[in-house]
Amino acid sequence: MKISMYQASVPAFIRALNNLAAILEKAEAHAQGRKIDPAALLNARLFPDMFPLVRQVQLATDSATGGAARLADVGVPAYENTEATFPELVARLRKSVVFLETLEAGRIDGTEDKTVSWQTRSSTKSMQGLAFLMSHVLPNVHFHVTTAYNILRHNGLEIGKLDYLGRN
Amino acid sequence: MKISMYQASVPAFIRALNNLAAILEKAEAHAQGRKIDPAALLNARLFPDMFPLVRQVQLATDSATGGAARLADVGVPAYENTEATFPELVARLRKSVVFLETLEAGRIDGTEDKTVSWQTRSSTKSMQGLAFLMSHVLPNVHFHVTTAYNILRHNGLEIGKLDYLGRN
Repeated sequence: MKISMYQASVPAFIRALNNLAAILEKAEAHAQGRKIDPAALLNARLFPDMFPLVRQVQLATDSATGGAARLADVGVPAYENTEATFPELVARLRKSVVFLETLEAGRIDGTEDKTVSWQTRSSTKSMQGLAFLMSHVLPNVHFHVTTAYNILRHNGLEIGKLDYLGRN
Repeated sequence: MKISMYQASVPAFIRALNNLAAILEKAEAHAQGRKIDPAALLNARLFPDMFPLVRQVQLATDSATGGAARLADVGVPAYENTEATFPELVARLRKSVVFLETLEAGRIDGTEDKTVSWQTRSSTKSMQGLAFLMSHVLPNVHFHVTTAYNILRHNGLEIGKLDYLGRN
């Protein structure tokens, strides 16, 4: 018995982005309840040369949608990175989930040996599909969701591991 | 074409733990070079009720070895959680990698529909193998490695995303 590239990718991305959306909704409610300027959370970062919360959320969606699109060989969704509020970030997450839901399993299944290439700031990289998924895309999605979680935890939001993992 | 449960689990765990070991070695060298008490990093945490670095590393190994052992239906390695230095944490990571390397692919392949049960502090949980891997074990491994990374970044260690992802 075997599993498929689709089973090891898109459902996990959707779950991670939905969990992050729920965390951001808690953060927004927390800011309202405590009369905290939402920007104090949205622009928070763990170190001056790390990305702030807004960018971590954008990168979580880009990692998931870009990774899935490259495996499926469809256009990579491009967003403008203009989000400046919690509702706008949640909308980006929801939009990314809708994109992921449109991807047919058949376009991703069988891509484990396919060569995936992508452009970084300084070079072109390529990996085989399975390594691209397991060593690059999945770790990146979880990295940015976890870092968003850590920024909010560090700033006092009362969330726990189950918010990160999802409750079902 | 298909992939297997082994391909989607053990190699990713080994990679994540090896990357974390390399990060801890950089942290130790950084502490020595800057005459920082290693305990200041080892006991650092992002919020008072979050786990410190030492425990994040222990949980990264437990998530990986426990997850793989439950899929493979072999005994879950139990460590004593007595590590108090960087070399001890690196040794725990190396020991965990050795355990993971002993697991035969044939014991994990085909476990996607198997029911995996485990004990939490308050209850017994169970999930099907594929969901256990994709929604529980892999997110947990990446969570604890990322949080260890974030604690060190927050404390000024000069590392970057490539240290987290691994360089090859």
